[in-house]
Amino acid sequence: MHAIAEVQVIPIGVGVSVRKEVMRAHELLEASGLNITLHANGSNMEGELPEVLEAIRGTIEALHSEGVLRLSTHIKIGTRTDKTPTMAGKLFK
Amino acid sequence: MHAIAEVQVIPIGVGVSVRKEVMRAHELLEASGLNITLHANGSNMEGELPEVLEAIRGTIEALHSEGVLRLSTHIKIGTRTDKTPTMAGKLFK
Amino acid sequence: MHAIAEVQVIPIGVGVSVRKEVMRAHELLEASGLNITLHANGSNMEGELPEVLEAIRGTIEALHSEGVLRLSTHIKIGTRTDKTPTMAGKLFK
Amino acid sequence: MHAIAEVQVIPIGVGVSVRKEVMRAHELLEASGLNITLHANGSNMEGELPEVLEAIRGTIEALHSEGVLRLSTHIKIGTRTDKTPTMAGKLFK
Repeated sequence: MHAIAEVQVIPIGVGVSVRKEVMRAHELLEASGLNITLHANGSNMEGELPEVLEAIRGTIEALHSEGVLRLSTHIKIGTRTDKTPTMAGKLFK
Repeated sequence: MHAIAEVQVIPIGVGVSVRKEVMRAHELLEASGLNITLHANGSNMEGELPEVLEAIRGTIEALHSEGVLRLSTHIKIGTRTDKTPTMAGKLFK
Repeated sequence: MHAIAEVQVIPIGVGVSVRKEVMRAHELLEASGLNITLHANGSNMEGELPEVLEAIRGTIEALHSEGVLRLSTHIKIGTRTDKTPTMAGKLFK
Repeated sequence: MHAIAEVQVIPIGVGVSVRKEVMRAHELLEASGLNITLHANGSNMEGELPEVLEAIRGTIEALHSEGVLRLSTHIKIGTRTDKTPTMAGKLFK
């Protein structure tokens, strides 16, 4: 099951500037080996659904283990079985 | 890692009425054994992060295997390490 | 155009505990006079689309004017023209 | 109040392919004159908060008036008063 996802990780309690944690989240997602694109409101990624969810789980747990006390994570997942969606094919075809 | 989540599954291509699929999604999430509450914009749930993600994966895959061609799934996940969040404690304490 | 919405306001930079600001956001939304229900991942509300958006704008601006430096606001809006949706009718009928 | 937003409009009931309506939504948002960028999970935009909300309202109403019976619209809005955020400055600085 191929999935196109968006992940936005919002650290709470690290101050008004969250750049460091957001860049770290993107870096952790990229370490999953999936195709990832950073944009102004999150990171878009594509891969098999279990891999996508595993990358998200690992990212949340790593950020907490590195000291972030609280996270609000917002995820969109697009799946379809009539054909394989791709980010390159641009959103909602 | 305890998590409080919200899951909204939007079936695309089943017509204007999506009640049947949305109730089925809620039923599938409930089958995970986690604490789940249905509301007007999704299902709130709480549990360990891997269990929550596993319930979501299972729900998406089951809906597709039951014939839904396309899904847009919207997830919020709240995690914190300074204390254990609960839905009963009401949102963002 | 009737709308069923969900609004979650996440204050950034006020510390790990955000209860005060979240309760204030809910109070501000309620002051709009619309039908509002608080749940673990936001406030559900229903009303005419312009009224809903106006309540959200007023809430964001009031929180900032009261001293919150940064907000991440997450909104879902459901609209349909084949019939009038209601929260009581429960989500995605 | 400057805002950086993301808007994803999901048409329900138009079939499995929603490309036409999604491209139309992006076109309608662009007609607002705001700075807009299309990506795989929505359209990012920036502008004054009332203008952003007005562009969203107009887009939802236009799509319905053009025949879409049901829409699920997902919006993220980032606002801050300590400095002016820009999309070019890339997300969560």
